[in-house]
Amino acid sequence: MALKYEVLKTVGKTRLGKLYTKHGVVNTPAFMPVGTCGTVKAMMPESVAQTGAEILLGNTYHLMLRPGADLVEKMGGLHKFMNWNKPILTDSGGFQVMSLNSLRKLNEDGVTFKSHVDGKKFFLNPEESIKIQHKLDSNITMCFDECVKLPAPYDKVKKSMEMSMRWAKRSKDTFVDRDGYGIFGIQQGGDYKDLRRYSSDRLKEIGFDGYAIGGLAVGEGQEKMFEVLDYAPYMLPDDKPRYLMGVGRPDDIVGAVLRGVDMFDCVMPTRSGRTAQAFTKYGAINIRNARHREDYRPVEEGCDCPLCKNYTRAYIHHLQKCNEVLAVMLLSWHNIAYYERLMKGIRTAISDNTLDEFVRQFYQDQKKGDIEEL
Amino acid sequence: MALKYEVLKTVGKTRLGKLYTKHGVVNTPAFMPVGTCGTVKAMMPESVAQTGAEILLGNTYHLMLRPGADLVEKMGGLHKFMNWNKPILTDSGGFQVMSLNSLRKLNEDGVTFKSHVDGKKFFLNPEESIKIQHKLDSNITMCFDECVKLPAPYDKVKKSMEMSMRWAKRSKDTFVDRDGYGIFGIQQGGDYKDLRRYSSDRLKEIGFDGYAIGGLAVGEGQEKMFEVLDYAPYMLPDDKPRYLMGVGRPDDIVGAVLRGVDMFDCVMPTRSGRTAQAFTKYGAINIRNARHREDYRPVEEGCDCPLCKNYTRAYIHHLQKCNEVLAVMLLSWHNIAYYERLMKGIRTAISDNTLDEFVRQFYQDQKKGDIEEL
Repeated sequence: MALKYEVLKTVGKTRLGKLYTKHGVVNTPAFMPVGTCGTVKAMMPESVAQTGAEILLGNTYHLMLRPGADLVEKMGGLHKFMNWNKPILTDSGGFQVMSLNSLRKLNEDGVTFKSHVDGKKFFLNPEESIKIQHKLDSNITMCFDECVKLPAPYDKVKKSMEMSMRWAKRSKDTFVDRDGYGIFGIQQGGDYKDLRRYSSDRLKEIGFDGYAIGGLAVGEGQEKMFEVLDYAPYMLPDDKPRYLMGVGRPDDIVGAVLRGVDMFDCVMPTRSGRTAQAFTKYGAINIRNARHREDYRPVEEGCDCPLCKNYTRAYIHHLQKCNEVLAVMLLSWHNIAYYERLMKGIRTAISDNTLDEFVRQFYQDQKKGDIEEL
Repeated sequence: MALKYEVLKTVGKTRLGKLYTKHGVVNTPAFMPVGTCGTVKAMMPESVAQTGAEILLGNTYHLMLRPGADLVEKMGGLHKFMNWNKPILTDSGGFQVMSLNSLRKLNEDGVTFKSHVDGKKFFLNPEESIKIQHKLDSNITMCFDECVKLPAPYDKVKKSMEMSMRWAKRSKDTFVDRDGYGIFGIQQGGDYKDLRRYSSDRLKEIGFDGYAIGGLAVGEGQEKMFEVLDYAPYMLPDDKPRYLMGVGRPDDIVGAVLRGVDMFDCVMPTRSGRTAQAFTKYGAINIRNARHREDYRPVEEGCDCPLCKNYTRAYIHHLQKCNEVLAVMLLSWHNIAYYERLMKGIRTAISDNTLDEFVRQFYQDQKKGDIEEL
């Protein structure tokens, strides 16, 4: 395979690993900030890199609509276009076609849908999606699949999963092998163990550089998600990275890492940055809250992001109240820094044999809640 | 006086100077980016400094409404609050009270007005304005004055100017002298030469660390403004900085520098950044224009801002189309970098005795228009 993955150490079900791509190494467990339209919202790519992020996620759906895959290719690929020289994973567009489009027509071949931007008609199928991801120069291409919102009846999930597995084969067949590039299969099957098993077996037959766990974090709740993660990851090969798509909140990530997941992506840190929420060691806080108005303390003591190093809660509260862009810039930066610090903490704890202690402390701190009001 | 100013060289009417403040030196002719609410919109203060900006303008009116001068004082002053350790000049609030408030009551004492944010009643007069600027820890305090929109009849301008001069005296009397801090008087008188003369004489009697030319760029047009600038600056002391408030476009600035003005402020670079406009050597361009869609060239060849160093016109066009915050961030940065480069070019040209050549080239380049379409 053209994408090398090393598992350096395993503690319980948790793995420490390294994924080698053409654009550099990704240490796992890893969190991927989301750069939907070719930018991590309100962040300079240099700043994203400064947080410790080693890989970004790009969205095939959004980029095919604007500016179009051909243009990105003409500009030298997504790395060059957006000035991000580290690895990029792209999703297949399947999820967004389903979630952002009410006007779509799905059959065995693929999906016809209307752009949420201008209503223009587009078509995506496994072949198209993979070709687009090639044009974007994505280091990790994802299979084109269908994703069902949970809860859903067994037959519906089964039928959809089976088609996704046929699409996985077509995706793999279209994928062009290159050094430092790879393609991930996506396990489906909802919260039905036998369907997850069937899906995993099909994917392993086809053979991928990594395996995603799809169809979770789609409305089932954390308890149900963890229930599935108690078995789903172990149906996938031990020697390949496992990626839980679209997850999640910090405690979702910690719980999933403990269940053997290696990679994550989520819009949470940047989206929260746009709604005045900051993640901290002691849980999430909303900086618009009046209690921060005269608070001269940083959002999170010990955080080395510019928000926490250079500004008071009072200042960021003020920026928020005035709808200043800098509030969004600083909160997005802080939140991604928080996520990347969490991942680094996990990796260090695995390496130092202190994962139990790390996780115990994580839950204890999160439960504690924000520092006392001044 | 507590604010030292040196004129290092004079070429024609143009001066090269240095203004010494508690927070550092400002080389003149200088352009001050505007940080209305305690932030230069969509910019990190480190980035503003990187453009070469040596001084910012803060708005008394906006800051007194939100977060309030007492809070800024409690947080250690505006420099510390907003993480900008270089000099700050604050306006007096007079201009905004007039321009942002239809519901105001003005008399000899001062102005009662309603906040444009929440309708709450506020009061400003010379004493209040100066005290607020002290609380903000402003290096350069501006006198509280009234500003009349042009064109306006002689009697109206005269009456307003005379009151502004009485307010200038009250402002100066309230100002507390401190090393590295100073107060500027504001010349008024519209486009009436004798009123400008009278105003200047009154201000010189009172005595200030610097002198602003107020009441211009308020609707009179460039030709009329230059007409006034053909005499107004020379009514003010030679050994003090002259500051043209709220000006302007690049060619306004060049024209005013040639007429002996040393300092400028304007929202133009950041406001334009929010409306897709980029200033370049060859004039302003609008990046939303379709001609940039596939253009792999930088916005401005040779510019060392991140926008021009790291991105194509195609990319920034794409960001704009998607309403991405990064477009605003990058364009604001570029535009301030453009302005600061212009000022540095002027200063270097004065120093090198090449000002004529610099100005000739400036107008020639600006007239030339954008580089040819691909």
